[in-house]
Amino acid sequence: MKPRFIHTYVSVDCVVFGFDDDGLNILLVRRDENNQKDLKLPGSLIYDEEDVDDAANRVLFELTGIKKMTLRQFRCFASPDRASKSEDIKWLDKEYQPNINRLITVAYLSLCKIDRKLNNVSKYKQTEWCPLREIPKMPFDHNQIVKESLNEIRRWIEHDPSMVFELLPNKFTISQLHRLYEAIYEKDIDIRNFHKKVTAMPYVVRLEEIQKNVSHRAARFYKFDKKAHNKYKANM
Amino acid sequence: MKPRFIHTYVSVDCVVFGFDDDGLNILLVRRDENNQKDLKLPGSLIYDEEDVDDAANRVLFELTGIKKMTLRQFRCFASPDRASKSEDIKWLDKEYQPNINRLITVAYLSLCKIDRKLNNVSKYKQTEWCPLREIPKMPFDHNQIVKESLNEIRRWIEHDPSMVFELLPNKFTISQLHRLYEAIYEKDIDIRNFHKKVTAMPYVVRLEEIQKNVSHRAARFYKFDKKAHNKYKANM
Repeated sequence: MKPRFIHTYVSVDCVVFGFDDDGLNILLVRRDENNQKDLKLPGSLIYDEEDVDDAANRVLFELTGIKKMTLRQFRCFASPDRASKSEDIKWLDKEYQPNINRLITVAYLSLCKIDRKLNNVSKYKQTEWCPLREIPKMPFDHNQIVKESLNEIRRWIEHDPSMVFELLPNKFTISQLHRLYEAIYEKDIDIRNFHKKVTAMPYVVRLEEIQKNVSHRAARFYKFDKKAHNKYKANM
Repeated sequence: MKPRFIHTYVSVDCVVFGFDDDGLNILLVRRDENNQKDLKLPGSLIYDEEDVDDAANRVLFELTGIKKMTLRQFRCFASPDRASKSEDIKWLDKEYQPNINRLITVAYLSLCKIDRKLNNVSKYKQTEWCPLREIPKMPFDHNQIVKESLNEIRRWIEHDPSMVFELLPNKFTISQLHRLYEAIYEKDIDIRNFHKKVTAMPYVVRLEEIQKNVSHRAARFYKFDKKAHNKYKANM
């Protein structure tokens, strides 16, 4: 028998990372308001007139109200059995239409300052920042997508270290930056080597300001200088 | 009117790079044997039981006879009008089936030593290495895919410089490596700075052997040492 070509719906799924003092978090949505555990990545089927990038921008805008979020496509997930679990099929039936027998998805990555006010106007009633370590079992292959997105952040940071500052407040301490790198690489990073590394980044600029109202010794604030970074890159 | 979700075929397209002394080349296939100019990227619709990676591997294997070619997925192209030119629609009608009104594709990148013997058993009667500078206007968005694949190689090389050696013979001269970098970055690279850069790569190993039967001064050969590279990366 001649093999058949797939004829399928296509979705986008977005992994939005945020960073707080305890580590990395991911923005998840709840499908069922009455089930605390029913979390998934925000996503949507794409429309007839849409490119995949448009669809990902639409999903994130509806979820956050932020118009210009940096989004990076990182991989198409198309395993033939990724939408074959009965509970996932049931949800697709109800949410979109019956008989979605195959579904491929294009995954996107986004970095967001976690203290930004989000204005959710999406179909999902609830969104929440979930610590990376506490992510529950999610539908489809969403756990795998999250796992691969972390590898992808690492690759991108090596190419463009300025990305990490999208996750930090405008003023940050070296200790925060250090914790962020440790969270991204999921390992301890020697603080003295890390200081050397930061010293080699002319775009991490020391401010006059120091922390206020802290019980420990007040640390100095730094900021990311985009212009210095672009100059630095141009000279590489 | 409620917008409709796309229901579409999905293809893969492969950009296979090869390098000779004149620069970078791409492996293209001819759709029409009688038309010298009718070149395109090798690709295929994906089958029902296939993941996209499987489909890309199938296409490359049929085209080259090489079982273990390194393939890297780099982007999904899904513009609503990418398969809307009448000559492209006609070809899809004939080659696959009528009424393919929308087609998204997942693009892959591969690097190949250009002197490898290729064993083409694909449906395409002819394959050829086409110099990057001489690539004709191709169907669909294949020209755009090639352009973006070159950006992608650059990003990858910054992350993993060992990739470039997939394009070189097992024994190569520094001059060849230099020309390859110039071809990838499409710019002149100062040879003295380049020498310094290579000296900092402990995995580029000097051999005792030098060129034979050359009219100019015989250059020394070097090789890529994978073990040294892995050790170097582990210590980064």
